[in-house]
Amino acid sequence: MPQALERKQLEDLQQDLHSVRSLLERQHIVLSLVERQSGPNQDVVEALKRKQHEVELRTKLDSMHPADVAYILEALPLAERLTVWDLVKAERDGEILLEVSDAVRESLIRDMAPTELVAAAEGLDADEIADLAPDLPQGVIDDIFRALPVEEREQLRAAMSYPENSVGALMDFDVVSIRADVTLEVATRYMRRFDELPDHTDQIFVVDRDESLKGVLPLAKLIVSDLDRSVGEIMVNEPVSLRADDDAQEAVQAFERYDLVSAPVIDQQGKLLGRVTVNAVVDFIRDKSENEALAQGGLRESEDIFASVWGSIRNRWRWLAVNLVTAFIASRVIGAFEGAIRELVALAALMPIVAGIGGNSGNQTITMIVRALALGQVPLERARKLFAKEITVAMINGLIWGSILGVLASVLYHSLSLGLVMTAAMTLNLVLAAVMGVMIPVTMARLGRDPAIGSSVMITAVTDSGGFFIFLGLASIFLL
Amino acid sequence: MPQALERKQLEDLQQDLHSVRSLLERQHIVLSLVERQSGPNQDVVEALKRKQHEVELRTKLDSMHPADVAYILEALPLAERLTVWDLVKAERDGEILLEVSDAVRESLIRDMAPTELVAAAEGLDADEIADLAPDLPQGVIDDIFRALPVEEREQLRAAMSYPENSVGALMDFDVVSIRADVTLEVATRYMRRFDELPDHTDQIFVVDRDESLKGVLPLAKLIVSDLDRSVGEIMVNEPVSLRADDDAQEAVQAFERYDLVSAPVIDQQGKLLGRVTVNAVVDFIRDKSENEALAQGGLRESEDIFASVWGSIRNRWRWLAVNLVTAFIASRVIGAFEGAIRELVALAALMPIVAGIGGNSGNQTITMIVRALALGQVPLERARKLFAKEITVAMINGLIWGSILGVLASVLYHSLSLGLVMTAAMTLNLVLAAVMGVMIPVTMARLGRDPAIGSSVMITAVTDSGGFFIFLGLASIFLL
Repeated sequence: MPQALERKQLEDLQQDLHSVRSLLERQHIVLSLVERQSGPNQDVVEALKRKQHEVELRTKLDSMHPADVAYILEALPLAERLTVWDLVKAERDGEILLEVSDAVRESLIRDMAPTELVAAAEGLDADEIADLAPDLPQGVIDDIFRALPVEEREQLRAAMSYPENSVGALMDFDVVSIRADVTLEVATRYMRRFDELPDHTDQIFVVDRDESLKGVLPLAKLIVSDLDRSVGEIMVNEPVSLRADDDAQEAVQAFERYDLVSAPVIDQQGKLLGRVTVNAVVDFIRDKSENEALAQGGLRESEDIFASVWGSIRNRWRWLAVNLVTAFIASRVIGAFEGAIRELVALAALMPIVAGIGGNSGNQTITMIVRALALGQVPLERARKLFAKEITVAMINGLIWGSILGVLASVLYHSLSLGLVMTAAMTLNLVLAAVMGVMIPVTMARLGRDPAIGSSVMITAVTDSGGFFIFLGLASIFLL
Repeated sequence: MPQALERKQLEDLQQDLHSVRSLLERQHIVLSLVERQSGPNQDVVEALKRKQHEVELRTKLDSMHPADVAYILEALPLAERLTVWDLVKAERDGEILLEVSDAVRESLIRDMAPTELVAAAEGLDADEIADLAPDLPQGVIDDIFRALPVEEREQLRAAMSYPENSVGALMDFDVVSIRADVTLEVATRYMRRFDELPDHTDQIFVVDRDESLKGVLPLAKLIVSDLDRSVGEIMVNEPVSLRADDDAQEAVQAFERYDLVSAPVIDQQGKLLGRVTVNAVVDFIRDKSENEALAQGGLRESEDIFASVWGSIRNRWRWLAVNLVTAFIASRVIGAFEGAIRELVALAALMPIVAGIGGNSGNQTITMIVRALALGQVPLERARKLFAKEITVAMINGLIWGSILGVLASVLYHSLSLGLVMTAAMTLNLVLAAVMGVMIPVTMARLGRDPAIGSSVMITAVTDSGGFFIFLGLASIFLL
């Protein structure tokens, strides 16, 4: 993708969206006019008008950055989106497909013929094709492989072989590398052979005869150095480097910690394979935090806001189904105590409070633990301390909030013992929430799963059923 | 902060943490030995041993990157954290304070004398001091101002004047600028006067006599160009630039969209004020998504995992209090229908299902709308369409899930009419959830508040009370 500095300012984007919309609307009006009045002359005039709007729109789109076209495609309902998509120059299809959200990409790919897809992929780098691959039909991928030159075919095969959340999946192959024994003069001459260095080239990689990484030469250092000196003298000897099979999260931490723009990727033997750039890392961070936010909110994947009703229902049903099951279990817990509720109907009014506060408190614990786990700050020897602390916090909170509610309940229902049961149930449920709030994410992390996804649903299930059981159970024992 | 390329690999970090911990432990053992046996010779021997461990630890810390020291400080409980902090060289205090989390920073600053704080700040750039300023006592800030040279004092005043979420708050002053009429040869010679260019210098800013931004000169282009040509010929004429008083979110979008490493910041008149670099943007993205995750989880701010029990309670009480109020209101709704529940106790067991599924469904809608709002994809004219879609989805989901539950309820309680009431209540509550799930975030966005924070609590409050009211209300009308 070419560097995007010449493009217009961000503030013009909304303006662009507006103008595309009005062009679309004018075209639409023309179309409906054509449909209504189809006299022979009228036809030609309107067709011309329509043609003119189309040319205008096409020119507009051609002048826009791929990311901006992607933005506009995402903001348009399906029919208009496909109209615009058809007007985009074919050679730009690939770079725009890379920029749109998953849901919108699917809608665009569905609209394209296999030959169009192959043509779109041909304009892309191997690592970019690998990013699109999961959304492409197998036949198209085979055709792309056949169309690629040998070197890129190998790169594509390598890029597609790395698992989704590995450093290899973030890697690109746009490396500029050089030997340590040449002078900066020679290095500079070598670089002049490029029209422009690849995007995000803040450093050149220094390798030996076997392509083994020896160091890096920051451009900012090259520019201020005497050209007679050798690359080896100026280069940084032990650069931050990443392993292709490492977890992508390690790349994220390295980029954040050391404020990198690019980092070399090596294999087990230290051979230079490619590089990771900060924009790939930023995209990864955004995707990850977005996926977590979506899962927290009970969505399976990001939803095209103009998705069909049916698409939305499909995206949402899983979490609703899980929720239905957990709610049904909680309901059966209550069902087991129907006798108690019949005798003391106040229990029915009070029980959701015990369950609700437990869920809230458990989610607080989970959020804190998930964050600490993500930062690698919960070693085994500390886990016990954390447990003790969370339980203490829960007991104190339970006594404070439980007492407040206990007093309220006693006053409302003129029963001191009901208040005491309320206080005790709140405290116990908060302790349960604390125990499970530590155990659920820690267990998920040990099983190698992302503790940020699903923990919240589980804790709520536990504190709901648990809260009802504790409160109604205590009430049955002490009040009836 | 110096570029961090020479630093050790990420995988060594856990190892470092471990070795710091074992050094601390050995020191601790020595200390307790000293306490127990205080014979005259023993004293000297142990003091020597202790000294030796201290030197070892200090050497270890000196060799580490500030971000790595920060990581270790965050992973240690308060007492050990302060021991390590005292061993860090005073001139590194500033750069490490910048790296630690807010909660840990507070704990370190509390431990420092005002003179130490002033000294720590003196090693930092104006924009970095501005980042620390909110955590520093006013007296210290005054002293820092007095200690700064005039130019930096002005920069600090400027940096502190920008609101927290503005582009100005992300900006630094490490700009390298040049005139358009000089040759690349002269430009290169000028740059050689720097020992090293500032971090993240991927482009030089081209300005005229009045410091007005004319263009940018990417280093990657400079390096491959003929040195006889002028800056003006090579430079990019209409670079992406940011306004200091714009929302920081605009910088984020520009960096993501155009894959930038740095961008110039200008004032209303087009004068170059400073620049924003990708690492500042990455930090901002992380902070923002973290704050949202914390708020979603019911925490006020990020919690030092070794915070005191009391600190944790303070951090969490607000959301628990809000939750208590909403739960109490829901409880009073149930209380109003106690007569109905007494007559038909099955209602008590079924009502949490209606409320719970409503909450889940509402949160799905909210998550989707909040995301669309953040991307600027919900213009006014589309809002109505979205509304219609969400209501349709809710009605279909309500009928599907409501029917499943209706059948279950009919079978469990041998009452067809109870099943029908259940289905109707589920459908109505899901429609309520859809309406409020669109209205809450849209209203918050119109009021200029972040819809990601607090929306979830509100929707749950509405669907709880609403669900109970609808279900128990319908039951009172049709079943009793």
